[in-house]
Amino acid sequence: MIIVGIAGGTGSGKTTFAQSLQRAIRHDSVIISQDSYYYANEHLSFAQRVKINYDHPDAFENALLVEHLQRLKAGEKVRVPVYDFKEYTRTDRFVEVEPYPIILVEGILLLHDPALRAELDIKVFIDTDPDVRILRRLMRDVTERRRTMESVVKQYLNTVKPMHEAFVEPSKKYADLIVPEGGFNTVALDVVTAMLREYLRKQEENKQ
Amino acid sequence: MIIVGIAGGTGSGKTTFAQSLQRAIRHDSVIISQDSYYYANEHLSFAQRVKINYDHPDAFENALLVEHLQRLKAGEKVRVPVYDFKEYTRTDRFVEVEPYPIILVEGILLLHDPALRAELDIKVFIDTDPDVRILRRLMRDVTERRRTMESVVKQYLNTVKPMHEAFVEPSKKYADLIVPEGGFNTVALDVVTAMLREYLRKQEENKQ
Repeated sequence: MIIVGIAGGTGSGKTTFAQSLQRAIRHDSVIISQDSYYYANEHLSFAQRVKINYDHPDAFENALLVEHLQRLKAGEKVRVPVYDFKEYTRTDRFVEVEPYPIILVEGILLLHDPALRAELDIKVFIDTDPDVRILRRLMRDVTERRRTMESVVKQYLNTVKPMHEAFVEPSKKYADLIVPEGGFNTVALDVVTAMLREYLRKQEENKQ
Repeated sequence: MIIVGIAGGTGSGKTTFAQSLQRAIRHDSVIISQDSYYYANEHLSFAQRVKINYDHPDAFENALLVEHLQRLKAGEKVRVPVYDFKEYTRTDRFVEVEPYPIILVEGILLLHDPALRAELDIKVFIDTDPDVRILRRLMRDVTERRRTMESVVKQYLNTVKPMHEAFVEPSKKYADLIVPEGGFNTVALDVVTAMLREYLRKQEENKQ
């Protein structure tokens, strides 16, 4: 099994990169989002949960994600929680994930936690200019998530940007590969794809 | 043919990365240094040549390097000039380079010139902290090139650092892949190697 960690700021193109990899390797694989591991915070009221800083490392139950990655490596299935972004808590549903040979994990703060980093075989950081990132987030949140421009801008300036500078950007130094303009960087996709294909081919050869 | 360009500041580990790639692919390949293409400046006296800013893009005859890469792609041999770093001019010798399937080019300012960038199939930037880079350069120049610590420090602060900030660092944005701590980054080496091996394997298959 190869676990590829794909980190980077909001709007950097992490998901596009992960999806493009998945298409390119044409093999059983899965994308796990660090966002699925936000704490449920069921002991808090909705009003209290809304106020939590979801761009801070403490918002994520990384220990559970680490446990899941370790169990996948051991050949076990895991049940990834399904988060409810409207209610700011976990649903009672899960997505069952198989121990596929290629596991892609994406999230803004994947490289911040040493325990999490230790589980990643390839650590990629998608590096996109902040102005491009906020424009993408703005477009996505306003058109797809029906939020007002004011609320997106306010949240960006109040928490997203300071947390990015405090935690996301400094975690870049732990990356094995920094990929400028992730989703549209075909050369970077090609080299990572080549490595995953080489691994899958060797696996196939060992089976025969 | 795949041409891999490996850029990055002085002491970043460009050469180590190129040599490690060469060892890993175990196939005919060659490393070409942009340094070999410093202008000869034969119309100038030694005293004048010494004063040239060799960290500035204008010090390189990139047009010749571009021509050589194009001729290699066309299947021709080329004669790479041999530069004399003591006399600050070209020797009358050349190194003949074959059109190998993999050509590695390394140099501080490979990604600055658009014409040169256009010839590179994979553009890598080795990104190493400035303090680590100057320490490596200092050790190399003092122990291997028998220069005084003072002269290295003076040159670094007077030209190397300002030119790095003006031309090398900004050229990073043209990279397909940014590799933190080049020569010792085994994951980055593995992914680039995998892509080159995949290319070589396909070439072999097409021959058969």
